[in-house]
Amino acid sequence: MSRFLNGKYSQLQPYVPGEQPQDRSYIKLNTNESPYPASDAVLEALCSAEISKLNLYSDPTADLLIKALAEEYGLAPGQVFAGNGSDEVLAFAFQAFCDEGKGMACPEIGYGFYPVFCSLLGIEFLPVALNDDFTIDISRFKGLTQNITIANPNAQTGLYMPISDIESLLCENPDRLIIIDEAYCGFGGASALHLLESYDNLVIVGTMSKSRQLAGARVGYAFASEAIIGDLNKIKYSFNPYNLNRLSILAGVAALKDKEYFQTTSRLIIETREYTKEKLKELGFEVTDSAANFVLASLKGISGKQLYQSLKQRGVLVRFLKDEKLKSWVRITIGSRAQMNTLLGLLMQIKEETGL
Amino acid sequence: MSRFLNGKYSQLQPYVPGEQPQDRSYIKLNTNESPYPASDAVLEALCSAEISKLNLYSDPTADLLIKALAEEYGLAPGQVFAGNGSDEVLAFAFQAFCDEGKGMACPEIGYGFYPVFCSLLGIEFLPVALNDDFTIDISRFKGLTQNITIANPNAQTGLYMPISDIESLLCENPDRLIIIDEAYCGFGGASALHLLESYDNLVIVGTMSKSRQLAGARVGYAFASEAIIGDLNKIKYSFNPYNLNRLSILAGVAALKDKEYFQTTSRLIIETREYTKEKLKELGFEVTDSAANFVLASLKGISGKQLYQSLKQRGVLVRFLKDEKLKSWVRITIGSRAQMNTLLGLLMQIKEETGL
Repeated sequence: MSRFLNGKYSQLQPYVPGEQPQDRSYIKLNTNESPYPASDAVLEALCSAEISKLNLYSDPTADLLIKALAEEYGLAPGQVFAGNGSDEVLAFAFQAFCDEGKGMACPEIGYGFYPVFCSLLGIEFLPVALNDDFTIDISRFKGLTQNITIANPNAQTGLYMPISDIESLLCENPDRLIIIDEAYCGFGGASALHLLESYDNLVIVGTMSKSRQLAGARVGYAFASEAIIGDLNKIKYSFNPYNLNRLSILAGVAALKDKEYFQTTSRLIIETREYTKEKLKELGFEVTDSAANFVLASLKGISGKQLYQSLKQRGVLVRFLKDEKLKSWVRITIGSRAQMNTLLGLLMQIKEETGL
Repeated sequence: MSRFLNGKYSQLQPYVPGEQPQDRSYIKLNTNESPYPASDAVLEALCSAEISKLNLYSDPTADLLIKALAEEYGLAPGQVFAGNGSDEVLAFAFQAFCDEGKGMACPEIGYGFYPVFCSLLGIEFLPVALNDDFTIDISRFKGLTQNITIANPNAQTGLYMPISDIESLLCENPDRLIIIDEAYCGFGGASALHLLESYDNLVIVGTMSKSRQLAGARVGYAFASEAIIGDLNKIKYSFNPYNLNRLSILAGVAALKDKEYFQTTSRLIIETREYTKEKLKELGFEVTDSAANFVLASLKGISGKQLYQSLKQRGVLVRFLKDEKLKSWVRITIGSRAQMNTLLGLLMQIKEETGL
């Protein structure tokens, strides 16, 4: 820490991203990336002619991408915002709609970045207890004054909250903004998109990092009322107007248009997830009923960290989680069928060696 | 504005980027882009194999780029920070080192984004008067308490402040952070880089948007003490850890390594700039002695806005500036020799038609 840093950041604990070893010698099941490469449509879109044009600024309105998202999701372009990954979109939203006097309530287990945004921006963060089975009890969000952010399916657990619960929240809290982070939609869990018609307090956040094979291009977005999108743009144009680079705009548009690849890869992930759940259970694991591209798994007698270490030694990266309630769990990204079979084989080996 | 927006942003005036018409039917001399395409090395680096890998997250440490910048500029990797364009780097720096109690002092004419960052972040912005010829009188920065940001060469004017003046500022204000924004270095103006060895209150900000032909890839950076870079990383990891996408990291590295292209294109810009200055003067224009990739030009009897409009009708975009003191000026990006000849021809036409 330098002597120039704002005192208010002295205790700030930044987010810790999953390991990203660049040597690629691991089977990476730790950051919920897609095991499938970017669509061929993306390869076509990022042609030499477009790369040569990198001397020119990107369109700060990201018009092509905004229109493609609006068309794909049946919205007006004015209801769509695009950002440099959904992390940036969320950061802008927290900044725009919360402050010292307006906190953010989130399930106690969720995306680990929500409390970090709050800490950075001086926003009160209120963790709301989950049920013992990690499901969300929406009655616990009643009578609060904070805005609400919930990932659905939820981060870490993969559990999907029914749309009827989201509608209850929106209906009962008309003066609180409710952000539904749908990063893990696209693997079976339905979007709350249609509720935008009826509720002006809803913001839906999405990303192309998971189901659209573009984690490395950093394309996130939000859907909301035109007034809310205007607010997000006000923040963006006061922070970083050219937040999306030329190639990511093109990649996002191309990935959206290749619907067949999206559907095929999502179906494969869902099939592999269900297969993995079943096989893990056969091995004696407890597994969450995830609707995302990962599962949370736990084996009696070994901590998440120990399991992570054993797998890392064997060339597979999974994620162990710092949350006290998740100490016995690891989060496993759904990779290809072959990757999951390798993982399952190694878990069998670890079980035998440890006698668990 | 939605009813959910923070009251403190109701008066926020976002930055207005230069026009970016996507049809490319204009000669664009309004946003200080390079007229030359991205280096062939960038084309080679962004090969199909790399585009396919967009399903994987980028390296949040941007290790390859950090190391390439460190090597190119003779620094330790710990002294280098990378961001999604220098706008993001500046936003993080203003956020990290200023607050309600620590303002920012800048020349009254400079990069128009500095006061916007301050407005967004609740930071007092202190504009410091320039001399009548737009040069910076550093004695006016004495006895203040704010941090200081100065673009060198200065935005809008292109005027270069001698390094000895920067050293005076650093020396006389050891407890104020001094940010030198070198976006327009690389066209003849020398960097203050070597002062990092002696002054822990210096931050140098740079970009690959101008002299490296990568405006559309969004690659900015900062050089400072390891403690200050650590602070910037603390903010980044609390806001958007994967702020650089995979392809921009690779593009930045490739552009840095193609030193010959950098030198050739910079030399061409300098030659064309000096040629343009001379020809504009012959046409009766007043022209700043710019060391950047643009010049500020003024013709008696016509406002900057009128000149902009006349040129736009004729297919050339330049920038008129809102600042009261710049009302009679237009900012003209240095394009290719052919583009400048077209511009000069049109200016001659406008002069004849208006009888100026």
